Amino acid sequence: MKTAVEKIFSDKSGNDARAGDYVIANLDYVMVNDITGPIAIDAFNELGYKPLSDRIVVIPDHFVPPKDINSAIQYKKVKDFALKHNTHFYDLGRGGVCHQVMMEKGFAAPGRLIAGADSHTNTYGALSCVSVGIGSTEAGVIFGTGRMWFKVPETDLIRINGRPKKGVYGKDIILNVLSRIGNGGSAYKCMEFTGSTIDYLDINERMTMANMTTEAGAKCSFFNADEKTLDYIRNKTDDYKIYKDDENAEYSRIIDIDASEIEPSVAIPNSPDNVRPVSKVSERIDQAYIGSCTNGRIEDIRRAALILKDKKIDKNVRLMVVPASQEVYNQALKEGLVDIITDAGGYFAGTTCGACLGGYMGVLGPGETCISTTNRNFIGRMGDRTSRVYLANPEVVAASAIMGRIASPEEIQ
Amino acid sequence: MKTAVEKIFSDKSGNDARAGDYVIANLDYVMVNDITGPIAIDAFNELGYKPLSDRIVVIPDHFVPPKDINSAIQYKKVKDFALKHNTHFYDLGRGGVCHQVMMEKGFAAPGRLIAGADSHTNTYGALSCVSVGIGSTEAGVIFGTGRMWFKVPETDLIRINGRPKKGVYGKDIILNVLSRIGNGGSAYKCMEFTGSTIDYLDINERMTMANMTTEAGAKCSFFNADEKTLDYIRNKTDDYKIYKDDENAEYSRIIDIDASEIEPSVAIPNSPDNVRPVSKVSERIDQAYIGSCTNGRIEDIRRAALILKDKKIDKNVRLMVVPASQEVYNQALKEGLVDIITDAGGYFAGTTCGACLGGYMGVLGPGETCISTTNRNFIGRMGDRTSRVYLANPEVVAASAIMGRIASPEEIQ
Repeated sequence: MKTAVEKIFSDKSGNDARAGDYVIANLDYVMVNDITGPIAIDAFNELGYKPLSDRIVVIPDHFVPPKDINSAIQYKKVKDFALKHNTHFYDLGRGGVCHQVMMEKGFAAPGRLIAGADSHTNTYGALSCVSVGIGSTEAGVIFGTGRMWFKVPETDLIRINGRPKKGVYGKDIILNVLSRIGNGGSAYKCMEFTGSTIDYLDINERMTMANMTTEAGAKCSFFNADEKTLDYIRNKTDDYKIYKDDENAEYSRIIDIDASEIEPSVAIPNSPDNVRPVSKVSERIDQAYIGSCTNGRIEDIRRAALILKDKKIDKNVRLMVVPASQEVYNQALKEGLVDIITDAGGYFAGTTCGACLGGYMGVLGPGETCISTTNRNFIGRMGDRTSRVYLANPEVVAASAIMGRIASPEEIQ
Repeated sequence: MKTAVEKIFSDKSGNDARAGDYVIANLDYVMVNDITGPIAIDAFNELGYKPLSDRIVVIPDHFVPPKDINSAIQYKKVKDFALKHNTHFYDLGRGGVCHQVMMEKGFAAPGRLIAGADSHTNTYGALSCVSVGIGSTEAGVIFGTGRMWFKVPETDLIRINGRPKKGVYGKDIILNVLSRIGNGGSAYKCMEFTGSTIDYLDINERMTMANMTTEAGAKCSFFNADEKTLDYIRNKTDDYKIYKDDENAEYSRIIDIDASEIEPSVAIPNSPDNVRPVSKVSERIDQAYIGSCTNGRIEDIRRAALILKDKKIDKNVRLMVVPASQEVYNQALKEGLVDIITDAGGYFAGTTCGACLGGYMGVLGPGETCISTTNRNFIGRMGDRTSRVYLANPEVVAASAIMGRIASPEEIQ
């Protein structure tokens, strides 16, 4: 009687692994970006091992194109390492935000065990694998060994049933889950999502939810593989294995959510679990931001473009749309979405993590307010300590850009 | 017997102004950006005057979207000022690099006198007006007075005759002029360009040449208005006055250039006047950069795209294409140029001054080499002090991105 996650850790460690057990497991892939890669490389170089190049994925995304000399140094270090050792490498202009690239290039697939030196590595659980955010030095050791120790996580089962209302997406659902369990409410657990609602959600929505399990402190996330999962990985990889929970698997707890009761929602400052229906929030904004590994995919940009079509954004507001990958960028181009967004007065940027982490491409000044599709609104997350960040889905962000204040898409005629 | 520039200063000052005279002249427009604007605003506020809002143009471009908290503070200051006083204002997503916006929105036109708090304000001389780069505090005073003192400049007449070879553009011509007269070689002069070659050059090429008169230390630049000039300003403004030199106007010197002898050229580190034929240069590069007020216009992007079509850039090279304005961006979209560039592996960014001044969007790390369409290659201009910058036209930059080393477009099959 095991959870899918216990089964994956069993197979990857060659042991009968149960929640709470310590195991040494083989990783399918280890991923680093331009800020975690340099530390990983230093740790790896100390070891003196040969690199397992086939399993190493290097994706500069945080401060690229380099925003200053220090970021240029970090970028150059990971690029030189990747080219020297012939690792998987997605250079700028050819990659994107690391998690998005891991999923769209076929590194994430059902049954795999993946570690990434970035906290939102949890995202790939949307594709029915175990993916875990780790420290940079740990990644450097995996470069040479392919292995890492894990405490096998217990599973919090989040059962979500009911049909979401119009305008309710994965973002609204996960914000409401966070509101229920609190930041850190699933610390070191796997958050597994089941229930009839999942059938209504496309892979993009599941990725948004898996992504923000990080805000609950979860070790990983898990969705069962279904036809949508297999559709997503088709032509990317055919090397996968589907795991499911046994019927009597043990859960640390079961949380039931009625998705039909969820409203389009906003997390208000300064915490992702501080959630209100958008209808109850109307603060004026200076900036609107659509992007990131949370909500910077083509489905997100399509929804924003539908709202923005033939509209103009408020003159007090700047809108940045930052696609999560070059593939997303190219698809948005092909569909004419870039024209719609720039016609509305939006700024369509190249792919980067950008302002999500206050990196660049829209850092907030003192007292400024932003509504964003990203994952965190802690104090100072996107800039000055006195700035304020609201989190919402792309339709709400686009509607707010037009109205100059936080607004529901229903308000846009 | 006056030069056009003496006549413009005469009309704008109400005096019979001659080279060397000190005059107080009325400005048609004064422009500030996000780094010079805040200083200008402080100076203006000290004066206690009412702003001449119709003549003030505010265009954030250097560090937008804000790359850090400090740039967010500067951006917010100019935005708040512009909205409060209802000045001309081109917010991000709606403007671009300040000089490009000044020209494409009809602020620059024959016979005008314009000051801009940015050194490359010289650019608008391509449209047969006098435009001068000034200090930020001077700009703040003009906000309130509309006037500034000038020493009327002498004119260096650059007579350029002959038909340029294939692959020779305004960039190659101005680099060769700089090579001849040296950096600072026309300090405080007007550089006036005449001769049969000008007829071959479209307005974009003239802008590139006018732009880089700054590198010769010139106070301003001047081209005679012709049909191309009037075509350019049509539908932008009909308020202009054409000035020409009298037949016996006095020049500080006359320099004759035979354009038919000029080769596609590169300025090698670390000075714009350090010029070689591209056929004599083959250094390996890490970065290729196409953008800026010098060469980030639609004609530049078209030429680069023609070279890049159905090619891939070298795997060791990153290519950034950064349009000089939102209008250029939108036109590039419409013509399918963005697809061509991203298909080749290039990174197509939103409009910004970006890496030209080492601002962001491609800052160079230690020891890195860049070929760039921008205007300056002094030590550390685009990043670390040990980085090296080569200046060239967009075709040469695109060819170099493909070859991984500085290359002539003729080498691309």
